[in-house]
Amino acid sequence: MDIASLIGLLLAIGLIIGSMLLGTAPLSAFCDIPSVMVVVGGAIAAALICFPLGSMLKSPMIALKVLLNKGEDRRTLIEQIVKLAETARRDGLLALESQIAEIDHPLVKTGIQMAVDGSTPEVVQEVLRTEVEAMQTRHREGKSIMDQLGRFAPAYGMIGTLMGLIMMLQDMSDPSGIGAGMAVALITTLYGAIVANVFFSPFAEKLGLISRNEMVTMEIAIRGVMAIQSGESPRAIDQKLQTFLPAKERTLE
Amino acid sequence: MDIASLIGLLLAIGLIIGSMLLGTAPLSAFCDIPSVMVVVGGAIAAALICFPLGSMLKSPMIALKVLLNKGEDRRTLIEQIVKLAETARRDGLLALESQIAEIDHPLVKTGIQMAVDGSTPEVVQEVLRTEVEAMQTRHREGKSIMDQLGRFAPAYGMIGTLMGLIMMLQDMSDPSGIGAGMAVALITTLYGAIVANVFFSPFAEKLGLISRNEMVTMEIAIRGVMAIQSGESPRAIDQKLQTFLPAKERTLE
Amino acid sequence: MDIASLIGLLLAIGLIIGSMLLGTAPLSAFCDIPSVMVVVGGAIAAALICFPLGSMLKSPMIALKVLLNKGEDRRTLIEQIVKLAETARRDGLLALESQIAEIDHPLVKTGIQMAVDGSTPEVVQEVLRTEVEAMQTRHREGKSIMDQLGRFAPAYGMIGTLMGLIMMLQDMSDPSGIGAGMAVALITTLYGAIVANVFFSPFAEKLGLISRNEMVTMEIAIRGVMAIQSGESPRAIDQKLQTFLPAKERTLE
Amino acid sequence: MDIASLIGLLLAIGLIIGSMLLGTAPLSAFCDIPSVMVVVGGAIAAALICFPLGSMLKSPMIALKVLLNKGEDRRTLIEQIVKLAETARRDGLLALESQIAEIDHPLVKTGIQMAVDGSTPEVVQEVLRTEVEAMQTRHREGKSIMDQLGRFAPAYGMIGTLMGLIMMLQDMSDPSGIGAGMAVALITTLYGAIVANVFFSPFAEKLGLISRNEMVTMEIAIRGVMAIQSGESPRAIDQKLQTFLPAKERTLE
Amino acid sequence: MDIASLIGLLLAIGLIIGSMLLGTAPLSAFCDIPSVMVVVGGAIAAALICFPLGSMLKSPMIALKVLLNKGEDRRTLIEQIVKLAETARRDGLLALESQIAEIDHPLVKTGIQMAVDGSTPEVVQEVLRTEVEAMQTRHREGKSIMDQLGRFAPAYGMIGTLMGLIMMLQDMSDPSGIGAGMAVALITTLYGAIVANVFFSPFAEKLGLISRNEMVTMEIAIRGVMAIQSGESPRAIDQKLQTFLPAKERTLE
Repeated sequence: MDIASLIGLLLAIGLIIGSMLLGTAPLSAFCDIPSVMVVVGGAIAAALICFPLGSMLKSPMIALKVLLNKGEDRRTLIEQIVKLAETARRDGLLALESQIAEIDHPLVKTGIQMAVDGSTPEVVQEVLRTEVEAMQTRHREGKSIMDQLGRFAPAYGMIGTLMGLIMMLQDMSDPSGIGAGMAVALITTLYGAIVANVFFSPFAEKLGLISRNEMVTMEIAIRGVMAIQSGESPRAIDQKLQTFLPAKERTLE
Repeated sequence: MDIASLIGLLLAIGLIIGSMLLGTAPLSAFCDIPSVMVVVGGAIAAALICFPLGSMLKSPMIALKVLLNKGEDRRTLIEQIVKLAETARRDGLLALESQIAEIDHPLVKTGIQMAVDGSTPEVVQEVLRTEVEAMQTRHREGKSIMDQLGRFAPAYGMIGTLMGLIMMLQDMSDPSGIGAGMAVALITTLYGAIVANVFFSPFAEKLGLISRNEMVTMEIAIRGVMAIQSGESPRAIDQKLQTFLPAKERTLE
Repeated sequence: MDIASLIGLLLAIGLIIGSMLLGTAPLSAFCDIPSVMVVVGGAIAAALICFPLGSMLKSPMIALKVLLNKGEDRRTLIEQIVKLAETARRDGLLALESQIAEIDHPLVKTGIQMAVDGSTPEVVQEVLRTEVEAMQTRHREGKSIMDQLGRFAPAYGMIGTLMGLIMMLQDMSDPSGIGAGMAVALITTLYGAIVANVFFSPFAEKLGLISRNEMVTMEIAIRGVMAIQSGESPRAIDQKLQTFLPAKERTLE
Repeated sequence: MDIASLIGLLLAIGLIIGSMLLGTAPLSAFCDIPSVMVVVGGAIAAALICFPLGSMLKSPMIALKVLLNKGEDRRTLIEQIVKLAETARRDGLLALESQIAEIDHPLVKTGIQMAVDGSTPEVVQEVLRTEVEAMQTRHREGKSIMDQLGRFAPAYGMIGTLMGLIMMLQDMSDPSGIGAGMAVALITTLYGAIVANVFFSPFAEKLGLISRNEMVTMEIAIRGVMAIQSGESPRAIDQKLQTFLPAKERTLE
Repeated sequence: MDIASLIGLLLAIGLIIGSMLLGTAPLSAFCDIPSVMVVVGGAIAAALICFPLGSMLKSPMIALKVLLNKGEDRRTLIEQIVKLAETARRDGLLALESQIAEIDHPLVKTGIQMAVDGSTPEVVQEVLRTEVEAMQTRHREGKSIMDQLGRFAPAYGMIGTLMGLIMMLQDMSDPSGIGAGMAVALITTLYGAIVANVFFSPFAEKLGLISRNEMVTMEIAIRGVMAIQSGESPRAIDQKLQTFLPAKERTLE
């Protein structure tokens, strides 16, 4: 499991709370429920305007995906494709039918199933590419939700601060209250900056990276299926697909 | 109906008005008609310079489209295309003529009409693609108007604040009026931020999403018409078009 | 004539001057000739560094083009192309020679002239496309000048404000002058924001839109010439070119 | 010679110094050697991290290129190409050998030399295109250096101002010194804004324009060489290449 | 070795520390360990959320790569390719087998090995291009980490300043402490600006440049291998590949 995201998240939160504790002011000086509502609620409301309800409800799952992302096991995928290629070479394409149930990667499964069913290579490739495109569109929406949340949170933080300043400036009869009033006004800007830079923006970046990685893995899967169907030798397939791995992870023959 | 946009809009407005009510200042402290005119009027004036009058007059309808957008019913579209394909397979392309009136999607209608009229597949595809392109250009203009409004509103908010500050600074004889003067000056910046982040920017995002979704639906329609005209089997068409649906919505055979 | 730009411009100027008049300060508080020179002069000077003298001298004409832009009359163009196609169909391509003088659109004129002169379709298309590309490059420069002016005006506004602040801060012996000093310092920022958001940025947007519209019209012209030269039927040409019009403007047959 | 850049530069500098002289503070109030070093030195240091030493040393020459840029003489180039084409038409490609020394444009020279030496059109085009690409990469680096300097100068200006503010705030025992302290602190921000908006950003824009113009000229050169080698008629070459000129500069036949 | 980056880095650090020493405040006024932790720690934490642990651990090596980058020796590469081409011309492709061990560039090595092993040119090119693409993806990640660090550092600087301001404003009972409180609050913003503009942003730029340069070198390598395999003459290969060098570095024949 890729724990970097979890470590990073805890570290960022720890640093911010640590700095608050180190300061002269009590931690309660940084807590203000209405400010949380304006910033987080406002960002979520703005995102609700931008995206369908279904996508928004899925976004906490998407955030979890960032924290629990396992990474892509491309070596196992390539090994499995090469094994399928060996069977196909030895016993013919139809011999793969019995092994379909054991295939992990959904694209390879769909592709081999179609190949066994007698679809032409062009049709197989078109279906797989459309599938990949559709998957990518859904991923891009996940990243896009995080991006928008990370853009609206500071905006609503600024809205909150402006409202706080206007309130404070309306009533300056008590000079001693000015400082406290401004402090409260600034809290929404602080919340907006924290929420955007600790959660939404880094999560959006990570989702983009996960999506790009999955794309490469899916490219391996598609090229593998195509190569099996066109009857290339297992060794050539292995060599071709291993170029997608970093040099160190390649198995020498 | 996709009510997320409506919920989001009400939530954002509710949060902002709620925060104003929670504060110490009366709600009237946040109301200033001239400020509304500078910010909203200025943003609309700037957008009028950018876009033709016709497009600007249509923009309230476009905003409504965001709130009342029904979403794309791709499954029904695919089912209809498959039914058309079955008829074409069984009784020939010309048998579709009687069913044209019942076709919902305008692109499928145009495409089948042309196919029945004897246009070659290349011409049908060219006409449909040009149609899609023209539609997309019009959609992009709608999004573009919202984007510009969302960009000019804060700019005119800043112009208003600068004018207010200059007025206030000109006359500082009465120190007690400084706070109130600054409060009024800041109101236009607040309005600019609210108008941009509650309305225009999220609406622009949503319009972009709606447009992208329509594009996918139109792609399904074009591929469906092409497949019918080239006489592909209904089952193959069904399989090909369903790859555009999320895996869960697909019907298993 | 598309009067939206003119309306928008007058509205924006009216709103700003109206707000100044409504305020407590006299209008003269917002007038400062040296500030105008720093902001407008500075922006023009910076743009002069960026662009050739000839292009800069043409830019006032370009600004007028935004205000007096007539819009594209694509229906008339399509009708003219269809009429040419009918003549070519009936009497041969050479029969178009006598009609060349009456053609309005320069691209259609050039294209038909070349076709009549016996150039091959490939050469005609290459020449027309190069022409379009060159035209687009010149348009893009016009938009680019406005974009740069709209970017440098606020920058020189900020330079002016910084100079004003430094002057004011150097001499704080007279506290009563601080407010007035800051007011003057802020005027350049105000000018920069007004000049950019009332003139340059919206004009740049409009020029981009005009240019994109002209591109579509030129695409119609090129496709029309190509279709005439390849001897397509007038009816097919009409149908093909009308897809570039919004559905409502199409003529039903 | 294109003197617009020189005029613009002098105008911008004149306006800024003029405004300083017009003000109440002496010119010396705007002079601070350490501030110049932080802003200009810092921007150059950051650019040194970004680019190879060789490219950085060439950048003053690049700046001169902006000021002394002569513009492209495309008409003469086209005339020369047409003359070469006439010779080639009349006396064969090899007859061009004696004229190679007189060709001004390096790409035409290389291309004709290769054609005379018997290289195939494909090889000539590939070599010329690679040459153009390499030239463009070098140009893009020149623009990129100016872009980075124009981005780092304000950043180091802000760093200087922050340092000045921190120093000033550390010691507020003498209230009368606060204003002067802030004035000095602001000078680096002013320098950053001036250096970026008078020099680096406009120069980067101009370099981009010069580079784009050279690209078009090189496109003319390549197409001309290709046309000569394929034996097109001088008249057709003339017509084709003149489409790259603005309509007014074309010579009528 | 390209020492520009090292010089630039030392110069930037020297200028900043020099300015601090020149000022009235002691150097200690600019040192605050908790501020370093919020800014640098926060930026690293946010980057950890964005990128896999492995990539993050490699990033100090990547930073070193910027400082110690040797530049690409393209002339030697071209000479080596030409020598290989001569051997292949004279003694056949298989004669290269004995020289493979001496080839420096990994792409040329892989390509020649594959050619000798009898792979078709299409397969060789596909494998080499995939390799280049994979390498570029890894490079882009290195640049991306620096870009994100350079974006998060100022963000966490602002978070730190907001927290400092809120603390200071909470307790304004002692006016003499306000200045010092604000000075401390501003230090995180200063750190964020320094860290981003001295280290991360310039390093990201440099990594992009190094990566683009490597791409050109790899293009030379691929084209060289392709040319050798297709049996082109060493002289033609030399001429073709030298177009990738700046004109001055080319060897005349």
